[in-house]
Amino acid sequence: MSSNDFDLRSYIRDVPDFPKPGIIYKDITPLLGHADAFKATIDRLADRFRDAQIDVIAAPEARGFVFGAPLALALGLGFVPIRKPGKLPYKTISLSYALEYGTDTLQVHNDALEPGRRVLLVDDVLATGGTIQACAGLVEQTGAEVVACAFILELGFLGGRSRLTSRDVFSLIEY
Amino acid sequence: MSSNDFDLRSYIRDVPDFPKPGIIYKDITPLLGHADAFKATIDRLADRFRDAQIDVIAAPEARGFVFGAPLALALGLGFVPIRKPGKLPYKTISLSYALEYGTDTLQVHNDALEPGRRVLLVDDVLATGGTIQACAGLVEQTGAEVVACAFILELGFLGGRSRLTSRDVFSLIEY
Repeated sequence: MSSNDFDLRSYIRDVPDFPKPGIIYKDITPLLGHADAFKATIDRLADRFRDAQIDVIAAPEARGFVFGAPLALALGLGFVPIRKPGKLPYKTISLSYALEYGTDTLQVHNDALEPGRRVLLVDDVLATGGTIQACAGLVEQTGAEVVACAFILELGFLGGRSRLTSRDVFSLIEY
Repeated sequence: MSSNDFDLRSYIRDVPDFPKPGIIYKDITPLLGHADAFKATIDRLADRFRDAQIDVIAAPEARGFVFGAPLALALGLGFVPIRKPGKLPYKTISLSYALEYGTDTLQVHNDALEPGRRVLLVDDVLATGGTIQACAGLVEQTGAEVVACAFILELGFLGGRSRLTSRDVFSLIEY
């Protein structure tokens, strides 16, 4: 089958009451577990960005790694991990951002990117957009450029896209 | 360049005193960031296991995802994430294991694997072997079979391989 024959949505599972009562969580693990659906996912992202003059893929841990790393290989690029504090061994730069309750921090190695590098950010889900906005800020602190933010699925009702108005946002599946 | 022209070791960076004084940490991020070195890494793992009748790749978060997911695609297989507690949304099975101080727990979805499935476990580093041994136990709780455990690099002086004597262990780089 060609990648376009796949209804990727049919490989996303609704899990009620996760992570808390009343939330219906979109579980991407059935898609990952299905070889052809996983391949179609990466193929479609690669097709979308093959001509976008991307220099490097960056993604936040941990689910972003599952899509970002294969996409980097599919496009013939390197991969830069964005991590929670204390995980990256070398010198880092950090950015803290507000959560519903409290704050969170992300880090990237200070030599992982450089001014002028064209970066594609990848994550599994666009929800409120807080994480990817923090990733973008972190990338831009290095002087690199965020060309676009790519997601497997987008929870449109959470309004993440409206927080990313200055950015090119692409999602394979929209809810 | 062909994948065999790469001295992958030259893309591993020594970081002294991480995560604590006296430890020299082997940092794999330069390898990830170099497109051809990252590709050569995945190519070599794929070459090693292409004829091993693997059904699915499984890997623990988070660095295992960076190598396991691309390897799954390279071999035309699905990918099963093994995660810390509270991360997987659906029903899980769990396995706890001893750390130097205290214990840790890993989980996998209870429908991610099934009896008879031939699983290749992938992680970035073989150190003491505790994490991969826990992953193997978890996989085997599902009735699936662990065909081999593959690593980018192995810290031989930590004796992980001797804890995995009943298993097929493969490492691209040995220290």
